[in-house]
Order: sequence, then C-alpha cells, then structure tokens
Amino acid sequence: MTTVKHFQFGTPIETGAVIRNVPAAGSRIPGWVQDEAQGTLCRDLSEDEIVYGLGESVRGMNKRGWIYESNNSDDPNHTEDKHSLYASQNFFLIFSRQHSYGMFVDTPGKVSFDIGYSKMDQMKISLDDFAANVYTIEGENPTEVIRSFHDLIGKSYIPPKWAFGYGQSRWSYMNEQEVLEVVRSYRDAGIPIDSVYLDIDYMDHYKDFTINNEAFPDFDRFTRQMKEQGIHLVPIIDAGVKIEKGYDVYEEGVEKQYFCQKENGENLVAAVWPGRVHFPDFLDEKTREWFGGKYQWLISQGVDGFWNDMNEPAIFYTEDHLKEVFRKIDLYRDQNLDIRSFFAFKELVDKIDNNPEDYRRFYHHYHGQLVRHDKVHNLYGYYMTMAAGEAFRRYSPDKRILMFSRASYIGMHRYGGVWTGDNKSWWSHLLLSFQQMPGLNMCGFLYSGSDIGGFGADCTEDLMLRWLEMAIMTPLYRNHSAEGTRRQELYRFEHIDWFRNLVNLRYALIPYIYSEFMKAVLSGGMYMMPLSFVYPEDERADRVEDQLIVGESIMLAPVYLQNAVGRSVYLPEDMKLIRFRSCEDYEEEILTAGDHYIPVALNETILFLRKGHVLPMAQPAQDVEQIDYSKLFYLTYEAEPEDYELYNDDGISPVS
Amino acid sequence: MTTVKHFQFGTPIETGAVIRNVPAAGSRIPGWVQDEAQGTLCRDLSEDEIVYGLGESVRGMNKRGWIYESNNSDDPNHTEDKHSLYASQNFFLIFSRQHSYGMFVDTPGKVSFDIGYSKMDQMKISLDDFAANVYTIEGENPTEVIRSFHDLIGKSYIPPKWAFGYGQSRWSYMNEQEVLEVVRSYRDAGIPIDSVYLDIDYMDHYKDFTINNEAFPDFDRFTRQMKEQGIHLVPIIDAGVKIEKGYDVYEEGVEKQYFCQKENGENLVAAVWPGRVHFPDFLDEKTREWFGGKYQWLISQGVDGFWNDMNEPAIFYTEDHLKEVFRKIDLYRDQNLDIRSFFAFKELVDKIDNNPEDYRRFYHHYHGQLVRHDKVHNLYGYYMTMAAGEAFRRYSPDKRILMFSRASYIGMHRYGGVWTGDNKSWWSHLLLSFQQMPGLNMCGFLYSGSDIGGFGADCTEDLMLRWLEMAIMTPLYRNHSAEGTRRQELYRFEHIDWFRNLVNLRYALIPYIYSEFMKAVLSGGMYMMPLSFVYPEDERADRVEDQLIVGESIMLAPVYLQNAVGRSVYLPEDMKLIRFRSCEDYEEEILTAGDHYIPVALNETILFLRKGHVLPMAQPAQDVEQIDYSKLFYLTYEAEPEDYELYNDDGISPVS
Repeated sequence: MTTVKHFQFGTPIETGAVIRNVPAAGSRIPGWVQDEAQGTLCRDLSEDEIVYGLGESVRGMNKRGWIYESNNSDDPNHTEDKHSLYASQNFFLIFSRQHSYGMFVDTPGKVSFDIGYSKMDQMKISLDDFAANVYTIEGENPTEVIRSFHDLIGKSYIPPKWAFGYGQSRWSYMNEQEVLEVVRSYRDAGIPIDSVYLDIDYMDHYKDFTINNEAFPDFDRFTRQMKEQGIHLVPIIDAGVKIEKGYDVYEEGVEKQYFCQKENGENLVAAVWPGRVHFPDFLDEKTREWFGGKYQWLISQGVDGFWNDMNEPAIFYTEDHLKEVFRKIDLYRDQNLDIRSFFAFKELVDKIDNNPEDYRRFYHHYHGQLVRHDKVHNLYGYYMTMAAGEAFRRYSPDKRILMFSRASYIGMHRYGGVWTGDNKSWWSHLLLSFQQMPGLNMCGFLYSGSDIGGFGADCTEDLMLRWLEMAIMTPLYRNHSAEGTRRQELYRFEHIDWFRNLVNLRYALIPYIYSEFMKAVLSGGMYMMPLSFVYPEDERADRVEDQLIVGESIMLAPVYLQNAVGRSVYLPEDMKLIRFRSCEDYEEEILTAGDHYIPVALNETILFLRKGHVLPMAQPAQDVEQIDYSKLFYLTYEAEPEDYELYNDDGISPVS
Repeated sequence: MTTVKHFQFGTPIETGAVIRNVPAAGSRIPGWVQDEAQGTLCRDLSEDEIVYGLGESVRGMNKRGWIYESNNSDDPNHTEDKHSLYASQNFFLIFSRQHSYGMFVDTPGKVSFDIGYSKMDQMKISLDDFAANVYTIEGENPTEVIRSFHDLIGKSYIPPKWAFGYGQSRWSYMNEQEVLEVVRSYRDAGIPIDSVYLDIDYMDHYKDFTINNEAFPDFDRFTRQMKEQGIHLVPIIDAGVKIEKGYDVYEEGVEKQYFCQKENGENLVAAVWPGRVHFPDFLDEKTREWFGGKYQWLISQGVDGFWNDMNEPAIFYTEDHLKEVFRKIDLYRDQNLDIRSFFAFKELVDKIDNNPEDYRRFYHHYHGQLVRHDKVHNLYGYYMTMAAGEAFRRYSPDKRILMFSRASYIGMHRYGGVWTGDNKSWWSHLLLSFQQMPGLNMCGFLYSGSDIGGFGADCTEDLMLRWLEMAIMTPLYRNHSAEGTRRQELYRFEHIDWFRNLVNLRYALIPYIYSEFMKAVLSGGMYMMPLSFVYPEDERADRVEDQLIVGESIMLAPVYLQNAVGRSVYLPEDMKLIRFRSCEDYEEEILTAGDHYIPVALNETILFLRKGHVLPMAQPAQDVEQIDYSKLFYLTYEAEPEDYELYNDDGISPVS
C-alpha cells in the first residue's frame, strides 16, 4: 500500500509528465520546511537513509553528499564535480529499512538538490522559481513506491526487439562503403550485430532530414539492402535547423513561424554543426506536428530507428552573443595580461558555447503563452522526442520505431529511451554508467544505456571487454566513439574470439533480457535495481554500490577496475555463480551467502543466479530476429524451467 | 643480488640523475628490440608481469593498459585519459613472482611508455630523440631492485621533522590577519598543526622574493611570532620573474644574463601570474647559484620551508605567440562559424597556455652548449629545486629546510620532495593519490603527498574525512585548496571532534612514520609499497591495488568511495586490525589471512598490524616538537615493544 499525494505551490508550468489526475492536497508538504522567500524545501536525513534516484547524474547510486542540479547541459566532461548532465529527472527515493518515500518535483525550470552537501544530515531543494507540482509517495518498500510512481507518469517507451541487439556507432561512418565495411567485418568476425548508427555526416551539410547524396547515392536502396543483411540503420536527428535559402525545412519553418523567436519577434540565430541555425519551437503543438512528420521521410526509405541529439539544446553560440565576444576580445589586445585579465580573456571565449545567458534570449509558444526558454529549459529535448513519438503513432501505428534521446525530462520516457550522452573511455565511467541504470529506471527510463567503450578519449581493449561484460544486460547495447579517438569497433582489437563469445552471450541472454524488460515495463516496475529493492532488510546489501539485480533471477557484479583479475562480491543469499567464457563454455558453482572474492579473467562474464530462479538462454544468433525460441535452454538453481514465466512477442507490434 | 647495467645509445644529454659511475656495457639492451629509425624499444610482456613505477602518473599501481608520456605538464585535469602530469620519472619495474627487472630511461626529453596500450602484451618505449642512458637492474625481488636503483641515484631528500605534521594551505591566505585566524581556529578547535602555507598572494604583485607589505607589514616579526606558536610559514616560489623596472631580481637577471633567451639572443618574454616574466635559466650553474641565494633573504626572516611551483615551466602565453593569436582571431570575425571553424577558433584561444610550441622558442646554457628548451624540458623544475637545495647546503648547513616542488625528474629527489600538483576534490583522486605513492617511492621521491581534500572543485566533509584517513601515514600531510572552491579548513566542517581525533591520531603515529621514513631513506628502500614487495609469492596480494604496506609493521586499506560504510580487504597473512576512533578510543581484533569485509564508519581509521610487529605511538601533541618520546606506548601483535627499532633524531640537523 502506498499513499500518493499532490502538492502545488506557486503557479507551476505544466510539463505533461504526470498522466493521472491527483487533486492537490494543498501547498504545504508534511515533513518538509518550506521557505518561500528562499525558494527552498528542507528535510533532515537520518544516518540510515539512502537517497536514490535523480536519473542520469554523476556519482554513486546513493546520492548523498553532493548537489545535483536539474539543468540539461551539453557538457562532455562527466567528472564528479559536475552538477548537471544532459537530463533532468526530478524524482528521488528516500529509502530506509523502515520506509520508502518518493518525491517528484515537477517543474521545467532549474532545481537544485543539495543532498547532504551543505549539511551532511540535511536535504535542501531549491527552485529558481518557487512554483511546482510536487508528488510524494509513501510506502513500505521501494518496489511499491516505484510502481506507484510509474503508474503516475505512465509506462516506459518500448523499442523494437532488435534494439536489444548489438549496435555499432561512430562519429561518423562517412559513406556507404564505410558502413558496408563495418557490417562485413562484423559478419566476417562472426560477431552478432543488429544496427549501425549514422552520426551527423550522413546528412547534407548537417541539415536535418537530408542525405549527403555523394556519400549515400541511393539511401533508400541502401537502407533496404542493409535490412536484408539484418542491419538497421539508425540516423541521428539534431535539434537545430540550418539557415539556408532553398532548404525546405528551413523555408517552411520560417514561413509557418515554427522557430523560437527573440523578444523582438525575430527568429533566434544560434549555431551548431552547420553554423547558423534556428531552433524549432517543440513546445508549440503545431511545430511538433510539423517536425514529427519529417521523420516519416526517412521511415519511408526503410529507416526504423532514430536518436535525437543536441536537444538540451546545445548551442555553440548565438549570433548576438558572438558579436559581443568579438567586441570584447579587442579590449585584451596588446595588454600585459596577468592572472586576472588573462583568464578573463580565456573565459570569454571558453564560455561562448552552452552559455546560460543564451537561454534567456528566446521564447516558446506554450499553452497559448509566450514563455522564455530558461523557464522551460528542461522540456526541450522531451518535447522534441514527443514530436517524433506522436508522429510515429500517427504514421506508423503498427510498428515500433527505435527512438532515444540525449536530453530528457520525466514524461519523455513514454516517447523514447535515453543514452547517457558523451561519456569517456574511462574506467570510472564504466562504473558510473552501471550506477546510473537504477536511477534511470526509477525515473521511468527503462530503455537506456551508455556508449560502450566510451565516446570521448581512447579506449583500450581491456576496457572494451569489461564494459561489454558490465553492460551484458543493459537494454541499449551500443558501442559508440568520437571523431579523433582510437577506433573501437570490436573486430579491430586483438582477441576477436573473446569479443565474439561475449556478444554471442549477449544474444543468448536476450530471451531473459527482453522478457524481464517487458515485464518491468508492463508492471510499472524496475528492470535494473539496487540490491535493497530485493533485500530491503539486509543492511549490508543496502549499501552495495557496485552490484545490481536485473529482473527476477540475476545479480550482476562486474569487474570495473583496470588490471583487476577478480573482485569482491557480497551475496545477500546463497546464489549460483555462472562463469561464462562463451555460451557453451561455462561453469556453475553454488556460493553461500556472504562475502566472496571471485576471480574473473578478462574473457569471463560472471552472473549470479538467485535461488529458486531460472535463467532462460538461447543459442547464439547473428541478429535478434534469428534467435530461435524453440531451442531455449535453462540454467536453474533449485527451480524448474517451467517456474520461469517467459514473456515474448513479435518484437515489432506496439504493446500497451 | 642484483645486476646493474648501463647502456648508452645516441648522444644523450646529461641529467645528473645518476650519481654512481657505471661504465656503459654497449648500446644494445638484451631482451629488447631496438629500432633506431622508429626511435623505439620493444619487449613482450607475459600475462603474469606487473609493471610498476613511473612515479606521479594517472591510473593504478599496475601501469599496464595505457600510454604514459614523460613531458612535464601543467594540466589540472588529472583524468584517466591524460598521458602526462607534472613530473617525469622514467623508472619502471617489471615484476613477476620469478623475477624483478627495473629500467631507468635517463633522458631529459619526451619519452613515451606504451605499456600494453597498442598491443596488450607488449611494451614499447618511444623517444623523441633516440639518445639515452639506460640502466637496467635485474634481481630476485622488487625490494632488492629498488635498493640498487636508489643506490644508483642517491638517497631521498630528508625534510625537517615538523614537515610530517599537519599543514594548512589555501590559494591564498591574503594577509597576516587571515593567517592568524587560521592558526587561532586550529588551536581553538584543538586540532594539531605545524605549518601554514603562503600561496602567491603573499608576494608584492607575484614577484619572487618580495613581500606584499600591506598584507604582511612586518614579515620578519610575523614569521617569528608564528614560530613561537609552533607554526612554520611556508611561502611559494614561482619559476617566472616579473618584468618590472626597478625590481632587483629582474634587473640583476637581465644585467647578468641569467634568463632564458630566444634564438635571436633576446630574453624570452612569457607570462604567468604577474603577466610578463622572464624565466631564469636554471640549467646554467651561475643562474642556479644566483637564484638559490635569493631564498636566503626569506630564510633570514625566519622562513624554513618553501614550495617551488609553476616550474614545468607553466606558461600562460609567450608574447610572440599571443600576438599571432590575436592576428588569427580576426580571421574568424563575422563568419558563419560551423563545426570546423568554430572549434578551430576556440582551440586557438584554448591552446594559448602551456602550448608545446612555446618550448621551442627559448634556449638554455647547459654544460657550455646552447640547448633548445624542449630537448631538456623535463629538467627545468628539477634544476630550479637544485638551485634552492644547493643554496640551502651553502647557507644553512646545520639545518634542514623544507622543500618540495611541482615539476620533477629523477635526481631532484635529492634536493626536495614533491606534491602531486593541482588535483581535485574527487573521490577518484583520493584513490589516485594513494596509488601514486609507491610509484613515487620507487623513483626515489619518499617525501611526497597530495593536496588533501583536493585542490580544485568543492570538497565535502566525508571526502575530507576519508582523505585524511587514507593519507594518515603519507609523509606530506597538507590540506590545500584553490581560490573559488569551498573553504576546507578542518574547523569549518560540522564534526570538529572527528577531525580533531583524526589529526591527533596522525601525530600519535609520527614516531612510527618518521622512524620508518628515515629507515627507508637511509637504507635506500621503500616507505610505502605495494603488497607484492612484502608478499611476492602471493598471487592475490600482488594484484591488490587499494592496499599498501607502510614500513615494516603496517598495512593500509582505506575507504575511498563516497557513502561506503566499509570495504573488502585482503590479508596475505594473519593481521591485527586496529580500529581507531581516536588515539584513546580504539579496538584491536585479530583477523585470519584471507578476505574480509570490514565496516569502517566515517570517523574511524583502520590500520592492520602485521604479525610479529610493533606500532609505537605517542600521546597526541599540538605540534611535532611537542611529541613526548618519553611517553610512547606500543601496540603489538605477537611481538614485544623492544622488537621495534625506533629511529629518532633532533628533526632539524642534516642527516646523511
């Protein structure tokens, strides 16, 4: 039994995150000290309380000891001292053995969560504008609270089943030949693959809904040719629309006033990849309808998946600001630049891009009002993705389309998944991306994942192996890397057999992954969760930050340190360790509850099977469609295969 | 028994690192494939070989899986993808249970160590100029190899004993009043302290060997007044000398040609804190003698410690380069800056400081030759510190002077210690700084430490507690933080009693710390070492990356993750766990060899006492001088107090 309450203070801006009507029970939230003048909500934290949630954010699963800011930011340096990443997911869960308490602070502007930073035993929420719909959910255990919350915000987006297969991405595969070579190399290496991602260079001069015809002379044919080989091409879509005479998207947008405007009514001139762009006003319904319809042009060419990028929105510069900067630069010319003036000069240039001031330069048409962007900043990526999602339902009612986004806000989870943005080939990011999963799940984002191997910086072979092992059950399973970094397609490394075995294992696990993912979506539950969700009474388990439960049967405990040949694992109950070197070559060992040091070689993936549970597995397949469900086999620990309730469907038809 | 061999190829530039004459045994190094055309040395690595060393560098103790570059760099973002930090310490140790093999690649230019990055099982050393003195040391165990190496390069610098006490630093305490307040606050809180550091603002406009007389109206009196309160003031010295008419250091330097010159014979104009500066040519003996003598002016005012900074050298800009940049900036004005041009523009400004091209703009007088800076780049901080160290021996022959430096090269360890530069308030840096210690020790740098609590970014109370606990035996024990970050003097946090207990514990441990440090220096051994040095036969121990042995008695296993309430520890043998809440409040527990999960509350410090060993402890004291050696007490585990050989001395007189 949970109790859901709704409080409202100020005049909150609607976000569309909540789909159920819960009448407001007033404006004062029991248990919190509200200070309207300061714009804060405060509450003491007892020593045994763990604070989970806040989706995609830095640091561990327990968020205590830092300030997190909801303020969607295009910042590729996800170091511990950052306060914001690409997403704003304002739900957290205070957990103790006695009770679970969830709160969703529903407001589209900036929110700061000081969780024991200023004072170790206090939580302080600060709002830029003191207006919000706040939902609280009290319950006996975290699972119940999350189910209630997911009931409030609606079920997670469901991708096509092929989107659980392995995806290969790069900024960028420049043309048909490069894509063909990637696919051929994977097939030659015998490593399964379902998708190849097209980053910004597939477009004609970075113009949305265009194709570079020199690189892809017949995109329609190529898409279908790839599909015949079991490969889905997944193009990127950017938020900014290039300013270029004769470019239809630009011309239509200007004519129909689909773009964000400045106070003076002119369209904002900002810049991203192509240089100067306008930003579609996704908060305006008519713009969404128009922009969403554009995806159809690619779908008609055989595309059935997209990723929405740069939709915080990322801004290299606005034209107005850039002019100011160049004026100011001249003040530094021919000076003796010392510690103050030199760094002021550098900062002037360094802070041109993603400058918060730019978010005050333009407006949205939202529910009949003109609203300055910064007031609704965190909705932009969400509404861009909604534009696509609504269009998919209109134009493609019988088929799921893959969609995930970089920027997000709760509510967007109904239209697409997320990837955790431009991470790095760091071991610390391997762990971070593992720890981000439960927080994302709590906030409704079940289809999610990180760039495997890391996007920025150079990946090493051991990092790639360990990352693939860590992410073996992560729904989105995509290897992506940036221009200028070491190539990290799996076939480029030395131990191709290890990679083949690993990705084969992923595919063998898809019956379980898909089944548990779908059951979680349909029940409003969690797919990847902290141990405390399953063992709330176990003090030790509640503090574990580097193990997760996935679905009903499996505990993960990946190796995440370079040169480690094993790790310590805590078992809250007796479990069966399964040590895979491949789908065929594995060992099972029953371990008693407690602490264990487990050796794990670089080419091994370890899973822990819970007592009384079953792990269904398939024979390896070269793509998801080829998985043969008639030949499943079952690993069990004091259970029978028939104890497992397998969910399956055609993987394509919409499910609700 | 070890075998030391010397190989020489090309015409290496002398560094002064090695003090013992080992005749060259030729130019081909057995076991390595030398490719002169490529400038490389290659060797296979077997799976069981661990590569230690390379001093101050990123990543773990086992350096396999990355490229490390010796190229002293002022880069405050010590993330995993960096190749160079402030120091170049070209010694590594290949360890396996069968043998230990050390190599010192003695050359002052850029060296790259690819340790299993390009190929997992290969090590490749690349030299910019293929000329070096290479020393190899083969032995049965790592301890022997390190002793041989330290014999080759000479003993570590020994600081005064008070330098093992707690030090408080900040960029910057701006004046006398601020320093007084810090000291008073520590005394009021009952937290021991021995030193306060003066960062750049104590100077008059960042001019070396000047005092800002408004901030410190009578520095001589103030230094002595502080000394009476048991406080040593430790001013910073920067490499660059401000260009200012009438400033004696500048005028003398110009007149006597002490500064680095460009090819055309003009003094290089670079810039750091004060804006335009000249760089003393520390490689020139007469410059060293002159600059070293300047420290005497501060010593005569009661100063007995210094830190040398910005001596990579850090360069904000050179005048010539800055002019170029401003010319180029104009090319970007009024353009449609797109992905290529916008980032090219940003990079133009971003790469003004510490631009490698600047290191080709100036020259040194070195052993009668004119040598371009980049060829001897890694010696600059070393020779600056040598200038001070040689002067201390001349002017202060009866007294040790504290000295540590940011930039370094092997050889400098005879003149000063190092701190690990501008780290950050990151949990990952807490672990990094722990893992850097053994590498530094191997390279001869026994007096070292990191900025406790982290220099950049905002520190949390729990991070500060865990960092102080981790560093409880680190020789340099200094809390330092940057301008603009959260204040992190210990008395500013909530649990002052916890900090008091912790620093008291540090002081209680100083008899052991100092004794073991001095024995390591005098025997040429290690003070902080990986477990493999003590348990070379124990496969598990050899792979442990988050525990260290300190001296003969103690194993450290700190907690280094936020919100962790304990950790897993591996004991290679039975040990006695000592759990300190304070010097008086502690528990002892004997644990058997193997894996243990150890709960460790935030206010607890755990030490592991080896069987048959002794930990001498003192009663707490407010500063090092007040430690009462007549009242030592002893924690023992199957040993008697008299089994411990305590080293002590007056803490001030030079020891050799």
